[in-house]
Amino acid sequence: MVITHPSNATYLYVGLEFDTLSDIKASLNLVETTGFDFFLIPLAKTRQSSKEDESGGNSGELSFEPSVSSDLELCGNIWNSVVLGNLCCKLNGELELPQLESYFNQQLSWAQHLNLRQSFVVAHVHSTEEEHVALANMVCNALYEFPRESVCIRVCIDDQLSRSHSENHEVPQSSYMDSWNIWNLYQQCCHHHSNLSVALECVNTVYPSPSLTFLQQWLSEPVRYFILDTKIFLKNRQGFPVLSKSFQDLLQKFLPLSVDIIIRGEALHPNGYSSYLQYLGYLYSKQPILEESYRIEMPYFDYLQTPLQPLSDHLDSQTYETFEKDPVKYCKYEEALIRCFEDRRGLRVPLVVMVLGAGRGPLVNASIRASQRVGIVVRIYAIEKNPHAVWTLKSIQQKDASWERVEIIAEDMRTWNAPEQADVIVSELLGSFGDNELSPECLDAAQRLLLSDGICIPCEYTSYLCPLSSPKLYQEIRSLSYQRDGNGFSSFEVPYVVRIHHGQYLAESQSCFRFEHRIHNCLLSQKSYPHFRYQRLSFEVNGPIMLHGFAGFFEAQLYDPIYLSTRPLTLSRGMFSWFPFMFPLCYPIYCGDKTSRVTLHIWRKTIPGKRIWYEWMLTEPVRTKLHNAHGRCYSMNCF
Amino acid sequence: MVITHPSNATYLYVGLEFDTLSDIKASLNLVETTGFDFFLIPLAKTRQSSKEDESGGNSGELSFEPSVSSDLELCGNIWNSVVLGNLCCKLNGELELPQLESYFNQQLSWAQHLNLRQSFVVAHVHSTEEEHVALANMVCNALYEFPRESVCIRVCIDDQLSRSHSENHEVPQSSYMDSWNIWNLYQQCCHHHSNLSVALECVNTVYPSPSLTFLQQWLSEPVRYFILDTKIFLKNRQGFPVLSKSFQDLLQKFLPLSVDIIIRGEALHPNGYSSYLQYLGYLYSKQPILEESYRIEMPYFDYLQTPLQPLSDHLDSQTYETFEKDPVKYCKYEEALIRCFEDRRGLRVPLVVMVLGAGRGPLVNASIRASQRVGIVVRIYAIEKNPHAVWTLKSIQQKDASWERVEIIAEDMRTWNAPEQADVIVSELLGSFGDNELSPECLDAAQRLLLSDGICIPCEYTSYLCPLSSPKLYQEIRSLSYQRDGNGFSSFEVPYVVRIHHGQYLAESQSCFRFEHRIHNCLLSQKSYPHFRYQRLSFEVNGPIMLHGFAGFFEAQLYDPIYLSTRPLTLSRGMFSWFPFMFPLCYPIYCGDKTSRVTLHIWRKTIPGKRIWYEWMLTEPVRTKLHNAHGRCYSMNCF
Repeated sequence: MVITHPSNATYLYVGLEFDTLSDIKASLNLVETTGFDFFLIPLAKTRQSSKEDESGGNSGELSFEPSVSSDLELCGNIWNSVVLGNLCCKLNGELELPQLESYFNQQLSWAQHLNLRQSFVVAHVHSTEEEHVALANMVCNALYEFPRESVCIRVCIDDQLSRSHSENHEVPQSSYMDSWNIWNLYQQCCHHHSNLSVALECVNTVYPSPSLTFLQQWLSEPVRYFILDTKIFLKNRQGFPVLSKSFQDLLQKFLPLSVDIIIRGEALHPNGYSSYLQYLGYLYSKQPILEESYRIEMPYFDYLQTPLQPLSDHLDSQTYETFEKDPVKYCKYEEALIRCFEDRRGLRVPLVVMVLGAGRGPLVNASIRASQRVGIVVRIYAIEKNPHAVWTLKSIQQKDASWERVEIIAEDMRTWNAPEQADVIVSELLGSFGDNELSPECLDAAQRLLLSDGICIPCEYTSYLCPLSSPKLYQEIRSLSYQRDGNGFSSFEVPYVVRIHHGQYLAESQSCFRFEHRIHNCLLSQKSYPHFRYQRLSFEVNGPIMLHGFAGFFEAQLYDPIYLSTRPLTLSRGMFSWFPFMFPLCYPIYCGDKTSRVTLHIWRKTIPGKRIWYEWMLTEPVRTKLHNAHGRCYSMNCF
Repeated sequence: MVITHPSNATYLYVGLEFDTLSDIKASLNLVETTGFDFFLIPLAKTRQSSKEDESGGNSGELSFEPSVSSDLELCGNIWNSVVLGNLCCKLNGELELPQLESYFNQQLSWAQHLNLRQSFVVAHVHSTEEEHVALANMVCNALYEFPRESVCIRVCIDDQLSRSHSENHEVPQSSYMDSWNIWNLYQQCCHHHSNLSVALECVNTVYPSPSLTFLQQWLSEPVRYFILDTKIFLKNRQGFPVLSKSFQDLLQKFLPLSVDIIIRGEALHPNGYSSYLQYLGYLYSKQPILEESYRIEMPYFDYLQTPLQPLSDHLDSQTYETFEKDPVKYCKYEEALIRCFEDRRGLRVPLVVMVLGAGRGPLVNASIRASQRVGIVVRIYAIEKNPHAVWTLKSIQQKDASWERVEIIAEDMRTWNAPEQADVIVSELLGSFGDNELSPECLDAAQRLLLSDGICIPCEYTSYLCPLSSPKLYQEIRSLSYQRDGNGFSSFEVPYVVRIHHGQYLAESQSCFRFEHRIHNCLLSQKSYPHFRYQRLSFEVNGPIMLHGFAGFFEAQLYDPIYLSTRPLTLSRGMFSWFPFMFPLCYPIYCGDKTSRVTLHIWRKTIPGKRIWYEWMLTEPVRTKLHNAHGRCYSMNCF
């Protein structure tokens, strides 16, 4: 009985944990009748004292015995879809590390035999750093020994939550590592292994609202489960289990990250566990209805894409279709064109409009609609170098009478020999990082098409950057790390386009590269490298947090005051044509307890007529190498 | 006229720098007649004001013109062996970065055309960090654009030297970066590129003695040149140029690192430059005579070797021969055997000695000599599993009458079925890190060969580790970084055996793994994993310095009080059988201005009967991943 959101078509999976196991069929029956989706069992039979083990005669080897008599107790598809395993891994000092590791591996080997989809390891908050290092070492080894197995680290966040309330005040520091720091140790030790995730466990009754630091740290981590003890539930007036308001809020922040919930502890309500399940179902249904654009983007969450290169590669039909559906972008263009046409009404008849990179015609349509709205006559040139899209344009022209004054030009805008100059050139050449689809190069080469008082839409655009924490994306990039040759080609020296979901922006974005396309731009003519850019950006980041790279956005001025923006602060809401850009760093950088200054240097390098690329490096809080030096891992072709 | 050390057969190359160039043939003539080995010229013709460039009409492009009329002025082998080039790269704000970069690349392209073996770039000590970042970016790009070219960064160390005198006192800090920090920026930006090196330039007259920090920082860097201005020379009573005592000391520290010297500035002595050359020749001849072992080791300086695996691979003839030449090791063994035989004299006749891993017989000989010296009768079993070495043993036995009581056993010591038990087993199974050639596994398996009161030589050994700074070795490992598969197999997760030359130990070594081979070792019998080890080591490191890994050594007790040691503090002098071990880190770690705590965790993991490997990670000053997890990059085979 999967909990479904009535409007969002999203699901919440809830499981039940059994601390001990006497009859797995009875457990399965309870789980199924109550409506849980899965359950957790201990993998090993509960051990008696270690003395017993020794007398077992296996010369100090800890003898593993499964918690069930054999794999025949359940059928295969139940094991691999409904049962998850808890690994016993207490470091109690009595036993040597290799014995424990062997015992640990025997459990995981058993889990692999059963095809369980997840095993859990408890990282005790009261363990010392050295104990965590020992356990993290075992986990890391196991991930390589059992490459099909997924391991989830359970950390109790009670301490961190209760401490975070008094954050920024001088509180007596606990001698224990906080829960995020513990998890971070496992993650760093295992080098962000893609089979490693984390479960947040809550045992205490009362929580204050979580701090911003808490959310910043955890919302970007690969959190797979929330484990809720029945003790943390309060009773409402009818005696049913409910969660405190602040805890509800916390949970609502994590539910969109596709976490599953696990209930543990005794059912404290006469109806048993079903009342907990009902409450969670109610809570889940209260989640806000997802915006249409969010729903469209969901399949792309944290999915790394290589930035498009529409100048050198022809876009395909599917890509055109997706972009044409944007409900905001073309409205903004139409609005900009209306204002532009109004300002130029009567200057010339007809007004000459050139659509540079017309694609399958959306900006041609916007131009036609705008001219009709303003009531002026326009002659439209639709310039498109992709021969496949030109077929579309010609086909539309034959069917659509409003296209009678459109002339279709199958040429590259940079070399087209125009019969006349334009009043307005309009284009949609921007990429996720503004200039990264080579709009500056194309539009400056097309300035000769414009009358001396002509208008370019967009007339300027600026890219923005902010520091990004995203262990999840680092994990993804690491698993991509294909190595082309001995020169160290690396997936960490390539920018990506990605709908960042598990990630946190660590500071307000700052402007990076600005390009302007206004006639008689005197600066332009003096520069021999008009499209080279360099920027140094300094951010203040509140730690402790790991920095994994930078997220990129842009703002474009179409025609004052009409803007497009992908920048969080000034976002054009509902517009989905652009996901953020991302510049990764070759290894995660720790930003400490206090505020850290993060200084990024970034270059837009060009070999005119050949290729353009970005290079980036940090100088604070530590210096890194120059990423993508000489564009050796990634560059954009001009031809 | 290369300066040669009379006894060491080492060379000092001295060059002359020309700030400007009017007639290159005259310059070459001066260089050759004076006796210099090479000379430095500016690559570009001296530029007039930038206005002139602009009027050149090349639309702001800086026009490069060579300092010579063409490559015909000298013949090819002179260009590539005697001439080095200076790159002009002043960031003066007048010019855009891409213009400067283009100008920079034109010079380097010219140097490549001439096949010059080295080009120099000045990193001005009074430039801002941002200017250095800009220049480092150009250098880094150039290293990829001109992969055959070597670039040397010139930094003036005057400031750092004069400041370092008052080190550890509160001195008003200069607003400029110190010279090591400047160089470190270039090196980090270029990610320790193997075609990048550094030249230390001295312009001021008086120097105090360099501080320890200064030496620690620079002696491990790839310093290729010392550039001495004639102004830093004093005059002796006869008016000849000499260097101050403290400067002589400094130079003597760097000369063994194969630095070349470049003289610059006006010749201030009536005899011209030849008096400087004579003085340098005199200074060079004063270098201490190299020890024989040092001379033998020179070809191995900073040469990374994969540790031997004599248990799974048969050593070859050359390797045996090299090790047999060690002038210290077998004397120590003989001494240990003498003491052992004396202690056991009369216990049994004959005394049974087993040489485990007899190789080509050096320990058999040591045993025979020791028995003769003590005057007792021994029966010697020479156990050797390498069939090729067994031929050698048999051949010696036929010719050498002293071998009459030697029995040659072509078996593996771990499985040999012995006809009797031994009084003494003697072996030489230690690797550079003590246990890394699996001595513990072999000797414990051979304990059954020993009488209950028998003696094992060596009876115990301990490995040692200390933090290591070695940009040079990091550079070497980086250039090895072969990538076997997508799982990130890396040359940074493999230990090496290497005669560390360009490298500094940043703290006293600490004991790591200890193994004991004494009969009735009760601890041993109780442990199910007797050869597993884990150690946590904390070091205090004085910065600023980069940490690149850890150097490993061992101490072995043959028979109390006879020791072998490769540990710097207790070194067995003259013994050359073992170079240090090295555990690299996957990226260089910055240890800041103050004292940093460096905490290393290291494991010796085993799958008994299969393989053994080390894993390591840092938790301070930053956490790293677990290196070589599950032995995926490197392990030692037991079979």
